[in-house]
Amino acid sequence: MENSTQRQLAELKAHLREVDDLRSVGSLLAWDQATYMPEAGAAARARQIATVEALAHEKATAATVGHLLDALQPYAETLPYDHDDAALLRVARRNYERATRVPTSFAAEVAGHVTESFSVWAEARPANDFARVRPYLEKTLEFSRRYADFFPGYQHIADPLIDSADFGMSAATIGPLFEELRQALTPLVKAIGERPQVDDSCLHQHFPAAGQRAFGEAVIRDYGYDFRRGRQDTTHHPFMTKFASGDVRITTRFDESDLGGGLFSTLHEAGHALYELGIDPAFEGTPLNEGTSAGVHESQSRLWENQVGRSATFWQRYYGDLQRIFPEQLGGVSVEQFYAAVNRVEPSLIRTEADEVTYNLHVIIRFGLELDLLEGKLAIADLPEAWHARYVESLGLRAPDDRDGVLQDVHWYGGLIGGAFQGYTLGNIMAAQFYATALAAHPEIPAEIGQGRFATLHGWLRTNIYQHGSKFTASELLERVTGGPLTLAPYLHYLNTKYGALYGLREERGRP
Amino acid sequence: MENSTQRQLAELKAHLREVDDLRSVGSLLAWDQATYMPEAGAAARARQIATVEALAHEKATAATVGHLLDALQPYAETLPYDHDDAALLRVARRNYERATRVPTSFAAEVAGHVTESFSVWAEARPANDFARVRPYLEKTLEFSRRYADFFPGYQHIADPLIDSADFGMSAATIGPLFEELRQALTPLVKAIGERPQVDDSCLHQHFPAAGQRAFGEAVIRDYGYDFRRGRQDTTHHPFMTKFASGDVRITTRFDESDLGGGLFSTLHEAGHALYELGIDPAFEGTPLNEGTSAGVHESQSRLWENQVGRSATFWQRYYGDLQRIFPEQLGGVSVEQFYAAVNRVEPSLIRTEADEVTYNLHVIIRFGLELDLLEGKLAIADLPEAWHARYVESLGLRAPDDRDGVLQDVHWYGGLIGGAFQGYTLGNIMAAQFYATALAAHPEIPAEIGQGRFATLHGWLRTNIYQHGSKFTASELLERVTGGPLTLAPYLHYLNTKYGALYGLREERGRP
Repeated sequence: MENSTQRQLAELKAHLREVDDLRSVGSLLAWDQATYMPEAGAAARARQIATVEALAHEKATAATVGHLLDALQPYAETLPYDHDDAALLRVARRNYERATRVPTSFAAEVAGHVTESFSVWAEARPANDFARVRPYLEKTLEFSRRYADFFPGYQHIADPLIDSADFGMSAATIGPLFEELRQALTPLVKAIGERPQVDDSCLHQHFPAAGQRAFGEAVIRDYGYDFRRGRQDTTHHPFMTKFASGDVRITTRFDESDLGGGLFSTLHEAGHALYELGIDPAFEGTPLNEGTSAGVHESQSRLWENQVGRSATFWQRYYGDLQRIFPEQLGGVSVEQFYAAVNRVEPSLIRTEADEVTYNLHVIIRFGLELDLLEGKLAIADLPEAWHARYVESLGLRAPDDRDGVLQDVHWYGGLIGGAFQGYTLGNIMAAQFYATALAAHPEIPAEIGQGRFATLHGWLRTNIYQHGSKFTASELLERVTGGPLTLAPYLHYLNTKYGALYGLREERGRP
Repeated sequence: MENSTQRQLAELKAHLREVDDLRSVGSLLAWDQATYMPEAGAAARARQIATVEALAHEKATAATVGHLLDALQPYAETLPYDHDDAALLRVARRNYERATRVPTSFAAEVAGHVTESFSVWAEARPANDFARVRPYLEKTLEFSRRYADFFPGYQHIADPLIDSADFGMSAATIGPLFEELRQALTPLVKAIGERPQVDDSCLHQHFPAAGQRAFGEAVIRDYGYDFRRGRQDTTHHPFMTKFASGDVRITTRFDESDLGGGLFSTLHEAGHALYELGIDPAFEGTPLNEGTSAGVHESQSRLWENQVGRSATFWQRYYGDLQRIFPEQLGGVSVEQFYAAVNRVEPSLIRTEADEVTYNLHVIIRFGLELDLLEGKLAIADLPEAWHARYVESLGLRAPDDRDGVLQDVHWYGGLIGGAFQGYTLGNIMAAQFYATALAAHPEIPAEIGQGRFATLHGWLRTNIYQHGSKFTASELLERVTGGPLTLAPYLHYLNTKYGALYGLREERGRP
């Protein structure tokens, strides 16, 4: 590398590191708002987040970044595709080109707006008060449309929003995939509904939060989550957030009358955290230092939550520990009963508490609503009722109120509309693809899980997925790791096998 | 006001508000580091604080601020001295002139250095490892000297550092005042030492932290601390920090074998917080929105901690509540015994745990060491031993190690050397002046304290001190509120009266 190239690369990295610092600071402001901030701090917090977002956006879009990228282009072209510098320059350029479409004032305005909107939602949700958030949501929809319009030439107005979360994806690629999935799930849900139902009342006794926390944290420690590099707090809506390679935090929420909610949230967010913690430390401060897409991220949270945490071998190892914490509640419940309970399939109202089979129907509803809202087919005023109608249609249920309807998820209240949900289902699909590949390479993984040993699986994921951060796109990663593109087959196979056995379905039922 | 003046003023305020946002963000980064940050987050945190500090400094010293201040000078000159805009322009100019002396790169370097130094100290203190912090402290001393040198023409090298914390003060004004105080305190300490000693063993039983917290938080709620606008967490070193008018937090630390430590820290930090919370909300986002000096700030923390929280009438009201929380520990201890215990005077090693009488001797030692270090009379390598020597000389005690010696206070490890301590004693002196004035205006205050009512005192402080924020300097405030300059007499009168009664001293003893 020539001296001048070295200097330019160092200059670019220093600049990107400042952007990264500001983004981390913005994340801390949001984490604090969700965890510990006193209520009267909200208005100033919105302003502070907007100030930091504006500075980050200003720095990210500074002309000097463009000049450095141009100057470094000849160097990039000499490098193999998967050289770290090549990836850095490729991803930095992609981010730069995307960010420069959006004016700084707009980015700051949106950041301030969604922070305020989040605060209003946090009060409106328990009060079941859609009217209070409605004007905020209308403004959010307007911002979302304006965001899309900074990317003229899109095929569907949702595409720029989808692309910002799941690079390379679009309404045209996701729509048919989701439809195919819906058509495969509907008969499976129906077949399960015709079988004797699982009794999960063992999960709905009184479980003090301290015991729930102790158990969940012991499990994720075994997974490999390092509490010297993170921590777990409680929030209304669980999330994972990263302030540095050495500081990746998760949150959960405990419901003392529902053992599953807090536990599986903890496992889920820990999956996100393992991904971030596993990225090559050399990428710290660069745009490569984050998971590559919403879908791949979700594949990791869902894999640790479901493929691992809801598996029979997992509970063979951990159920005794849980019984020791809750002897009165679980002493008389067998591991088989418990395993069935945590995998009970039943159409329900709340996405985050949904079982693996019906979960995607929740996502598909939201994805469809986002498209309709953005297209202008659906007004915010009509959204609560449209929500109920889709639930009746897809899941046969109507929420008694908006709290468990359109107010249930934070996403539209703390971010833009569009691109907010597809990652969850893409993640489920990818999780099955990745996990099948891992099992093929290491058939011993389930047995190890049964002994509370996760090093083989964790190591495989780190080597094949985590360490790369954003170096490869989701499609590239799928291709490299599984040898093929995104495909439903492993996921449907996983669901049909697992739930076929649990519910005693005939083999041919529910096959794709 | 002319249109162009209005526009310029609005522009200046918008700019200052951004600076204020960044300073608040920097404070949050530090608060998080002290409360919840996982240990592996430290290195990145130092960098993030430095990045934010650099941006804040850059914005604070932007040429546009100077131009706006110049353009608004004619307007400022038309205003009465205590008009809000006049004060804003006066304080903004003072800050601007001070900040522009210091290069941004220096400010960022210092911010990064002290953040790292703080982390090292946090580990080195429990390990009693001065050698680990020594190179950091040497660098800090070098930074402190370089800081002073940005203000050529000083009389004493400590003056620019003292002035940045206590505007208008200098080594030349503080030195003689502290010497006068020392000469008055020495015979008082001696006289007390000759009297029968107070038994404070009642404070050193086992007091579970939860009960300590409950009691302390109930008291500060009565003081007027609003938990919707703040919160209390635990840290190694208690502090108060502000992120917005609606978000002023305090921290404390609980020692389960020492009831006084956590409680009086809570009352102390709540005093700081009441000051910040009481500032005119119209000042939010401007440089007027903070306490006017370290000394005045400390006068408020010490007033609520000591004049109120260690008074006989206070304990007449609250001792029953405390006994109900700790019936086994305190059931057999009378209120008179307890009052004497929390006011026991005895030379000791730890500043924050010192009684009201010997406290200032701790401060005077540190102030003297700062001057010697900055003058080059004392090397960092010799500081631990110099510390011990001064303690032997002033208090007749030698700490068994550096942990309770030179490592005990965070200040030199989390900030510059010079100007870090004088505010504590200035605050003690001012607290007595302010409190005497409040009592003259409202002789009913002690009786109200005896009923757990603080509204008269709190209202008087808010009206006379808090609401003004930084509008007036410490000297101006003293003049306006007490009708005279900084003076020792009320403080010595307070100490002699209170401790004369407690220890049965003859009237003429220890008078100034």
